[in-house]
Amino acid sequence: MDFAELLKRRTIRFFRQEAVPEAELCKLIDAARVASCGANAQLLRYMVIRTPELAEKIFYNTAYAAKVQPRRNPVWGVTAPQTFIAVLAPEGKAEADAGAAVQSMEFAAYNSGLGSCWIGSFNRGAVQELLTPPAGLQVRYLLAVGYPAEAHPVQEDIGLDGDPAYYLDEQDRLHVPKYTVEALTSWR
Amino acid sequence: MDFAELLKRRTIRFFRQEAVPEAELCKLIDAARVASCGANAQLLRYMVIRTPELAEKIFYNTAYAAKVQPRRNPVWGVTAPQTFIAVLAPEGKAEADAGAAVQSMEFAAYNSGLGSCWIGSFNRGAVQELLTPPAGLQVRYLLAVGYPAEAHPVQEDIGLDGDPAYYLDEQDRLHVPKYTVEALTSWR
Repeated sequence: MDFAELLKRRTIRFFRQEAVPEAELCKLIDAARVASCGANAQLLRYMVIRTPELAEKIFYNTAYAAKVQPRRNPVWGVTAPQTFIAVLAPEGKAEADAGAAVQSMEFAAYNSGLGSCWIGSFNRGAVQELLTPPAGLQVRYLLAVGYPAEAHPVQEDIGLDGDPAYYLDEQDRLHVPKYTVEALTSWR
Repeated sequence: MDFAELLKRRTIRFFRQEAVPEAELCKLIDAARVASCGANAQLLRYMVIRTPELAEKIFYNTAYAAKVQPRRNPVWGVTAPQTFIAVLAPEGKAEADAGAAVQSMEFAAYNSGLGSCWIGSFNRGAVQELLTPPAGLQVRYLLAVGYPAEAHPVQEDIGLDGDPAYYLDEQDRLHVPKYTVEALTSWR
């Protein structure tokens, strides 16, 4: 897939109930490990959660798409992700690195026909306790991964006077407004 | 360029003294604007610095590749970047979004035959004063952009017992050790 096509990637929140092969998950981590990071220090670690019992517990500690609830709330066993990749980071460090790694994984997922949802809204205490990462590392973000079970969201261009709130249309398709290059950029 | 090829992108610090066309720079911002961001709030803004007088002042407030100084210190008018993209963010917000946007821009640059260097080490007070962004926004990161004037860095795989410090070989080529997927990942 060329880069122009990759840029059409948008967040997926409904997933088919089908396991993602380990080789495909490794491709995502491979994209994360070569993402940009400060001083090449590579402080991030990754934990893949795919056993159904643990994935279910993680799922019940995550939140989705505040603006279109409850219509875009995945349901366990029906539309919920079966796999999560937890991004682990030392406390107070590597926040921008984590964003870069997640972005790289999302491109990798889309490139492989997978959908993904970057989750920053989760019960951090509960997830930390469920995953018990190595000492000094905290679960910074979760990435839900799976085969899409919703139509790919539609991107719309808006000016600075536009409303960036995403919304569902009557066909239950998500629309995602994005500010134009012109709206976001100044030249010096 | 397909995604496997894009993943070979590494940081470039020496640049040809040749202006990057505006259309190419717009492609980078286009990649940034559709990068993942929390709640689709799109809090980031971009400022492109390309007038030589201002670019020179910014350059003298940036630092490069601490581990291979002074051999990888670009020289103004010889190997220094002529263009910077400043990523602006509200104070204390959107740090991970900034990482995702920079990663997306770096892929876009590499896809267009451009090199880029994500700069987190700069004189923040001086740069903020030079660029005077709109009220409430701070210069969070700089991305140096230009046509590469160094051989593309070599990536090496290392285990967790390896040393992630990048280094220059006798041919002045940068080597960048990256931990393997196996080293970084646990499975649950």
